[in-house]
This record gives sequence, structure tokens and C-alpha cells, in this order.
Amino acid sequence: MQLVDFRKTDITDGFWQKKVDLVSEVSVFNVYKRFKETGRFDALSCNWKKGDRNEPHIFWDSDIAKWIESVAFILEKRKNPELEKYVDEAINTIADNQEECGYFNSCYQVHDKPRWSDRTDHELYCAGHFVEAAVAYYRATGKRKLLDVMEKYLEYIRIVFMENKSASFITPGHEEIELALIKLYELTDNKKYLEMCSFFIDNRGNETDVEYPGVAHKYSQSHLPVRQQKTAEGHCVRACYLYTAMSDLARITGDADLLDSCKSIFNDIAERKMYITGGIGSSGRGEAFTIPYDFPDLTAYSESCAALSLAWFAQRMLLIENDSKYADVIERILYNNALSSISLDGKAFFYVNPLAIRTYLLNRNTSQENTSEWLPQTQRKEVFDCSCCPPNITRFIASVADFLYTCDKNTLYVHQYINSSTETDKFTVSQKTDYPNNGTVEIKAEGVGTVALRIPGWCDNYSVSVDGKEIVPEIINGYVYIRNNGSVINLELDISPFIVYPSSKIRDYIGRAAVQRGPVVYCAEGVRNDFNIMTFRLDRKTDFSEILCETCGSYMLVANGKIPVESDRLYSRDAEQFTDAEIKLVPYYAFANHGESDMEVFMYYY
Amino acid sequence: MQLVDFRKTDITDGFWQKKVDLVSEVSVFNVYKRFKETGRFDALSCNWKKGDRNEPHIFWDSDIAKWIESVAFILEKRKNPELEKYVDEAINTIADNQEECGYFNSCYQVHDKPRWSDRTDHELYCAGHFVEAAVAYYRATGKRKLLDVMEKYLEYIRIVFMENKSASFITPGHEEIELALIKLYELTDNKKYLEMCSFFIDNRGNETDVEYPGVAHKYSQSHLPVRQQKTAEGHCVRACYLYTAMSDLARITGDADLLDSCKSIFNDIAERKMYITGGIGSSGRGEAFTIPYDFPDLTAYSESCAALSLAWFAQRMLLIENDSKYADVIERILYNNALSSISLDGKAFFYVNPLAIRTYLLNRNTSQENTSEWLPQTQRKEVFDCSCCPPNITRFIASVADFLYTCDKNTLYVHQYINSSTETDKFTVSQKTDYPNNGTVEIKAEGVGTVALRIPGWCDNYSVSVDGKEIVPEIINGYVYIRNNGSVINLELDISPFIVYPSSKIRDYIGRAAVQRGPVVYCAEGVRNDFNIMTFRLDRKTDFSEILCETCGSYMLVANGKIPVESDRLYSRDAEQFTDAEIKLVPYYAFANHGESDMEVFMYYY
Repeated sequence: MQLVDFRKTDITDGFWQKKVDLVSEVSVFNVYKRFKETGRFDALSCNWKKGDRNEPHIFWDSDIAKWIESVAFILEKRKNPELEKYVDEAINTIADNQEECGYFNSCYQVHDKPRWSDRTDHELYCAGHFVEAAVAYYRATGKRKLLDVMEKYLEYIRIVFMENKSASFITPGHEEIELALIKLYELTDNKKYLEMCSFFIDNRGNETDVEYPGVAHKYSQSHLPVRQQKTAEGHCVRACYLYTAMSDLARITGDADLLDSCKSIFNDIAERKMYITGGIGSSGRGEAFTIPYDFPDLTAYSESCAALSLAWFAQRMLLIENDSKYADVIERILYNNALSSISLDGKAFFYVNPLAIRTYLLNRNTSQENTSEWLPQTQRKEVFDCSCCPPNITRFIASVADFLYTCDKNTLYVHQYINSSTETDKFTVSQKTDYPNNGTVEIKAEGVGTVALRIPGWCDNYSVSVDGKEIVPEIINGYVYIRNNGSVINLELDISPFIVYPSSKIRDYIGRAAVQRGPVVYCAEGVRNDFNIMTFRLDRKTDFSEILCETCGSYMLVANGKIPVESDRLYSRDAEQFTDAEIKLVPYYAFANHGESDMEVFMYYY
Repeated sequence: MQLVDFRKTDITDGFWQKKVDLVSEVSVFNVYKRFKETGRFDALSCNWKKGDRNEPHIFWDSDIAKWIESVAFILEKRKNPELEKYVDEAINTIADNQEECGYFNSCYQVHDKPRWSDRTDHELYCAGHFVEAAVAYYRATGKRKLLDVMEKYLEYIRIVFMENKSASFITPGHEEIELALIKLYELTDNKKYLEMCSFFIDNRGNETDVEYPGVAHKYSQSHLPVRQQKTAEGHCVRACYLYTAMSDLARITGDADLLDSCKSIFNDIAERKMYITGGIGSSGRGEAFTIPYDFPDLTAYSESCAALSLAWFAQRMLLIENDSKYADVIERILYNNALSSISLDGKAFFYVNPLAIRTYLLNRNTSQENTSEWLPQTQRKEVFDCSCCPPNITRFIASVADFLYTCDKNTLYVHQYINSSTETDKFTVSQKTDYPNNGTVEIKAEGVGTVALRIPGWCDNYSVSVDGKEIVPEIINGYVYIRNNGSVINLELDISPFIVYPSSKIRDYIGRAAVQRGPVVYCAEGVRNDFNIMTFRLDRKTDFSEILCETCGSYMLVANGKIPVESDRLYSRDAEQFTDAEIKLVPYYAFANHGESDMEVFMYYY
């Protein structure tokens, strides 16, 4: 199976084109501005001295790298000399300050700490992100400078870790370089990079692998050799970057044990450890996976980067196995946690994506401390101290077309329904749809072979017609397979709103249910309703009415239910009295765009 | 109105006599043993030196004092030379180590810190508890030694605070001495102590009152002059000890402004800030009152001492105003939060009393830290580091008869239904009942006047008969008033189990309800049920069956409802399926006596 990557695919117009435009025209500039203001770009000059403002931080190189990669992805589709100039300046500065041996780290080079002495630091992580950026920028512009810098750096890393073994640890404390090495291998075909990737993956969790200081081994997936790991554990972003590289490696090398771990871990996440929004990480402690079926909504961690990393893991699995469960997870992330992490104006970002907000708790100050300190942020911010998410979101959206199509010799797989055109060896494809706003999809594939369309897991009513004639298609692992000879294929998905019931194994939502319309999860927001949304009980037989919402680019919903008549008695033998009420729901991704407000995804129902 | 205090009242047998016996025969010895082992008694010798084990702590004197007071209360009812010997030894040590000026503090006397330099320390708090102990021990035994020591100490305190004003603060950081001064005033009739109490109360919250360092003024009720305080704020035990003394002072002096504050604060607690168990303090941060209607169950703080302090505040209000709301709150505390704080075997104690336990969260370790650190303890412990609760509970239960009766010139008020006999100027009273196990109460009051019986707030069906003849009694503010001339009065309270619905203003229990039988709040425990209690939905039309439980001295209940059929799909369009189920409920006070277990007071219902 091959990825039909975003460079071959054009998103033509509609819902996602607007998001790509927003990222290309607003977000990437806003992130640049804030990175400039906070000293991240200046740090590349490696001339910070004690006492100066803006002390370089060990994460900063990765922020810059992801921003460069975002620009590279944007430049693939549209010229932008201003952005290109910014990147070239940064790359020149990096090249000028690369050490003779190849080392580059804007934080370590201005601090006294010995290199490769601390696994908790992010030297290899930053190097990995720079490698990704170098590959992307070379592909977009043909400019080799950053690529050369990074190939030199990697050779130095190879000598330190694989030849001299002179670092104080064997595998990175924060995985990332593994998947970057795969990208470089796929660009250069140089086996050295595949070997380096194998080295870091194969040594992880071995007895000789150094403990991640201060925390349990699980935190950095070092508790077991990777081929014995069968569940998702520890810090979510670390974990999914590792799993992404593991599945890359399994695909390339055909390593069955490694693949078995990837499959098992993916199922553990998708079936037991993933929020309805596609978010992962139920606990802020360690930003980590916890136990199965553990989905607190108020304190949901659901870090933006974690959801993105899961999408990339799922995307790699799609290259190995044609099962819609992977694309279903990607879709869940795309329309929910990924989009919620960026504001509708493209300027601000969530690090953490809660599934409920109760503003009264923010005012629940005790006289000593504020209990809200363990509550997630309730408004997006323009770049924060630990700003991994903003440039991660921009590179994710700029390359979102990566998730649409894969192909093998005979078959084109259509995983996501987004207005687009693309080309494979067999087909010239155009897809027309207003998805997710409606469920009509038209696909025209010039060429002879098979077209496979994903039937989304949420959809229980659909029809397929070929050249205007309805067919009863064969479904295998969530895809309908259609023999094609330049036909017009129409897929009609019933996208009407429905109620989603959580498993009774989830203790966090007892008595509550959520609402979806197609792949879009909805939420109630206090600012849109003139009663306390928490007290609303949804009538599970409700009809939904739909109102087009210009600002969020999709539909608001109105549902029926009841709200209690307020009672002053704290505890009473008299049962609550109710009055009928209507509740307005907005797409989850659009919450917190109208000021501080209560919010709830899972509502009590009757 | 006068208190008919516990020294005049004998609890004769039944539910509470067993508790008093347990405290007198087990708990007080167990607490002694643990205080001995931890160095609290040795500390009184004031010879600890740096490097020695068991460094004296600023709270320790108060632990000893409350333990002495517990023994004094026990000795009022039964001889116990062993306990008396322990107390005399402790008092001798205190007297031997009192300084010339009168100062005694086993912690300060072995540390370098200047006296009266730090309002966060508990010098006046410890002194206050010693004063209470001295009054109680003198009353029980006629022995003056501790009383003399404390009167000398108080004179020194008066000079430091009121004459020389040489302390670095004006009012104590932790209130307690105020109510102790009232007790000493009522014993000695020495106005000096009333003036000292007024001094500390009147100066609290004035502009000149020193800020409690590091925390907001509200923490120590120093945010406003007390007569302007109308809501319950800050650290709950501090607050209620202050309110207790304020109501004492208002009663004695007739200060209408002070009384108005007391009434308003009491209503704020009883109507907006009290758990169904009588607990107060919704947040562990600052052990404090938070906003109205804020009752998290899993993270309920509900400190044992806080509930006790509220009972004392309510008891003082009963001496001012004949309104059953005060005795209702006392009853709620007696049968729930007060009793839950001590194990059924009398040996172990809760500091914090949660209203729900979800054991799976205790195992929700992330690889970095355990999220359970913000969860309350789930099992009682034998004395802990900050051991204010154990000796507070022993003194509370040993003097529980203090809550039964008050009287004025003509009327005997019966507030609590407990097997007992007592005497007032007018009446010789005997009360026979098996309350709370059944609702039949027989009261015989030899003498002529009025007998007033409280109709509990939870009771919606009752009858009264006098000498076998049912009457239709007048009810004023929750009491039925019966003209009496040596009659046998029978009160029949319908004590059958019922469902309690929380106000819809409480966001923590939406869709959930509790069960009470009489004043006893029930809970579901995992160890008693073979399904996941959290998923149980109570049929609100259920009948209850009752099973006598020997170990907890009351009834278990069985109720009907349904539990969901487990579903593996995380999120599904299919609604939950249910099967019928019965749930066993135990009195809340008896929870956590059978090992680690899930527990829930508020259950989902339909």
C-alpha cells in the first residue's frame, strides 16, 4: 500500500480548504510573530548569555523545526516569498552555528550542561524535528542547506550513539527522531537512516536501556522491549511518535512481531483509551494514558499534539492494513480534537482540550488556593511557554491531504471525504462533496481498477450508485469495493444527527450521552443557551433541527429536553420538577470561541 | 434558654450508649497509646533537643488537651483510675514545665522561634484547648491543678495581648481560645475571661488585625469585622469555633448585631454549604468553605473536626432561638459525619469523609504520578500526623448527651431522641426509644409545664399521643408543644426509608438521589454488592426491605433498580440495555469497615 501524499493531492474548496487557507494565511504568521517575540528565533544564533532575556529552552528547536515544516508544506501549494525568506534566514543561522562535529542545539550550546548527559532533555527530539523540517523544506523548495546540516548532525549522532556509545543513555527520552529517520530514509534511500531508526527502536525498553529519571519506565515506553509492548502506556505524544515509527519500520522491514505490537497497541487505544473526540491522555499527570475506559471530561487532558500523533500512527497503519478502523480514528481526530485545538480565527490554540467546562468551578476559590489549578484551560491562547502544539497544528492542517487517499497496484482507497483531486499510477481522481455538512460524495476516477470507499463507523445508512445506478456493494473491513472504468461514483451517507451512547464501562458518563452529526461531535455551550446547560436532560427521542453557522462553517443543532425548576431546598423528599426546554448545540471544535462559558459534550438524557 | 448538660443527663442504653462505651473503653485508650508512641506525651516535659526523635509539633498540645478533656467527660460518668492516673501525670508534667511568667507550650519551649511572632502557629489555639480541658477536668474530678496552671497562663496572655500589646498579631490565627474563655467564664464567673473573649472577637477582621500570612484574609475569618460577616468563609474548623464563641458571646451580652451575623452565617451553612451528611468544607485547599451548592462527592473534604464544630455552633444557637433547624443540623451530623469519622471497632478515624469512593481511580496511576493524591483517604487510620480529629471525636461522643435537652423556665425541649434520663428545675425526665432504629419515642416528664418535641425536618408523617390519647399538636418552628403534668407522651415518627433529592442547584449530583432512613443517610458499598455500584440506577418507586445489621447497630436496606448490560463498544448509536438488580445499602457512618471498596451516597435513578 502506498500513501497518495498531499503533494499529489489538491484540496480544491470547501470546509478543509478554508482551514488550510487559515493556517497558511493567519496561523503560520501568528506563530512566527510569537516565536520571534519570545526569542525562539534569536536563540538559533547561540549567543545567549546568562542574565540576558529569553533564556533558550530545551524544547525551542523543535518549535522552530515544526514551524519550518509548516511553511514547507504551505510552500508545496502556494508561493510565499515572505515565509520562505524567514525560513532561509533561520536555516542560515542554524548552519552558521552548527559545530564542527555536526552538533546543533540552540539550548545546549549556550549552557554548561554536558551534551547527551540527560535523557529527560530533548536533544534527539529536537534533532528529529529538524530532520523532518529538512526533508519537507527540501521537497518543497529543492534547497538542501538544512538537509546537509542535518545529515551531518545525524552522522555525528550515529557515531556518538552507535559507534562510540559515549552518551549517558541509549534511546531518546522523548521519541521523535525514529519517525524522522524513516522520512529521511524514504527521501534518500540511504540504509544508514533505517539502521539508526532500528537501533533506537530495538534498544528501547531493553535491560540496558537507561531508566527515565524520576518517573516510571512506562512514561517513556521503556518498560518493555517494544515487541513485547501490547498496550498503550505513558506519555501519549512520546508513545504515538514511537508507535508511528514502529509501524513505519514494520511496514518497511516486514517485521511481524513489531507489526503485532502495533496492531495490539492501536486496538488498545481505539477500543479502550480514546475520547469521543479522538483525544488521548486522560490525565495531566505525565500527559499520559491511564487505565482503560477512563475518560474524565472536566479534567480531560487530551493534548492537541497527542491527538495529532495518534492520527499519524493510524495513517501509517493504513499503509499496512486495509481496515476502516484506522481511517475512522483519523476522521474522529480530524473533525474534533484536531480542529478544536485551533481557534476559528486561526490565531490561538489549546494545549489541552477539555470535554466539559464548568465555569462556576473557576470561581470556586477557597481562601487559600484556587481549586481550578487542576482544571484545564478554558480559552485558547496565542502561543504558550511549552508551545509544542501551535506549530504542530499548523503542519498537520497544512498537510491534511495526506489522510485522504492510499493506493495499491489496482485499488484506490478513499479514506476521507474532502473536496479534492489527485493522481495515482492508475487513476486521475476528482472528489466533490460538501462533507461534513452533507453526506453526498461524488467521485470520478479516470482509469481502470477498483475504487474502495470507506463507510464511516458512525454511519448506519448509506447508498452507493455507479453512473447513476444504485448498486449493492460488497463491504470488506469497512470499505465498499467498486470496479471502476472512469465511472461517476456517488456515495450517499445519512449524515443526520444522532445520539451516541458511551459504553457502560466508562464510569465518567453514567446517565449521559453525546450528539454527533456525521463525524462531528457536538457540545452544549453556556453562551448559546439561557439556562444552566449542566441541568439539561436530553430527550433521547428528540428531533434535531439544523441551523447553518457561518462562523464555524457547519451546522448548529437544536434538540429537545427538559430543565429542572430551581429548588432552594438543599435536600428534599420532593422529586425535581421539570419544564420543557430546547438546547442549542455547536460542533465541539467550535467551542470556546465566544468567551468564557460552560461547555458539555456528554449530556444527561431520559 | 439553658443547656441541660450531659453531666445531668444519663444516656441509659441503646444505640448511643454503645458508642459512648466504645469511646470510653476502646478509643480513648487507643488514642492514648498512639499519642504515647508518637512522643506527644513526652513532649510535655519540654526537654526535646535537636536531633532527638519525635520533634514536638505546634499542634501537639491541643491533641493532648482534647484527649484530657475526653477523659474528663468519661470520668463524669464512670470511674477509671487508670485514665485518671495518665491525666494526672500529664498535668503534673505541664505544671512542672510551666514558665515563671505563665507561658506553656511544649513546642515553642524547645524551639528558638520567638513567642507570639507567628500568627500561623497555634499558641493561642493550644492554650484554648488546655483551658477547655482544665474546666472539664476540674468539673469531673474537683482537681484544680490544670485550672490553676491555665488561669496563670491566661493572665500572662491578657498582659501580652491586651495590656502590653507586645505580640506580633492581635487575634489568633486559629480560633478556639474564644470559646474556651466562655467556658471558663461560665465556670468562674470571672468577667476578665469574658472581656478577653470579647477582645479577640471584636478585633478580628478590623483594619489593625494582622493579615494571616500567605493566604487570603478569609482563610482565618479576618476579611471583615465579625459583625459584618454574613456568610461562612474560610477554614471550616477555624470558622465554626469562631461562630460558636460569637453565639456564646451574643447570648451572654445580648449583642444584636453579633447575633444577626450568627443567624445569617448559620443559614448560609445549613441552606447552601452543608453536605447531606452534615459535613462542611467542600475543598481540601484551605480545608475551607467554597461557593454555595458546591458538593463534590469524590473529593469531598468534610473534615471530621469541621462537622463537630458545626454541631457545637448549632448547639449554641439552640440556646438563643427555639428553631428545629439547629437541632436538625445536629442530628444530621450525629448520625452521619460524626459517626462516620470513627470505625465500628472504635480504633481508627477519618480525617476526611468522602461521599463517594471509586477504587478504580486509586489504580489510575499514570507512569509519572498517582492521580489519586487529590482523592481523600478511603480507609480510617489509627491516629495520623495531624491528629486533631481522633481526640475531638472522643470528646464529642463522650459528651453527646449535651445535644439532647434544653430548658427555659416552663419548657423542656427535647431535641434528640436517645434513651436517657435527666433533670431540670421543673422536670424529672425519662426518654425511652430505639431511635434511630425505629421511630417510637416515649417521654415521661414528672412535673408541670410544657414539653416541646422536635419533629425532624426529614419526617413527613408522625403522631403524638398523651397518656394514650392522640392529640393534634401545635407546631411552632419545628417543635410540638405539649402541656404536661407527669404524662406519658408518645411520639411516633414514620422512619421508613425514603429517597432524598438534591436541589437542582447542586451541580455535583445531577440525575442522582440519596436514601435516608430517619436521620441516617445510606450508601452503597462495592463489597456488599456483586456488580459495579456506580452503574446501578435506582428505581425511585422502589420498596425498601430492611435487614438488621449487628455490626453497624442499625438496618441495612435493599432497594430495586437496574444495571446496564456491559458493552464493549466505547461509543455506540445503540442505547444501553439493562437488567433488573437489587442493591444493598448500609448506613453511611458504617462505610469502609470491610476493606477497600467503592462507595456512593448519591445514586443515579429513574
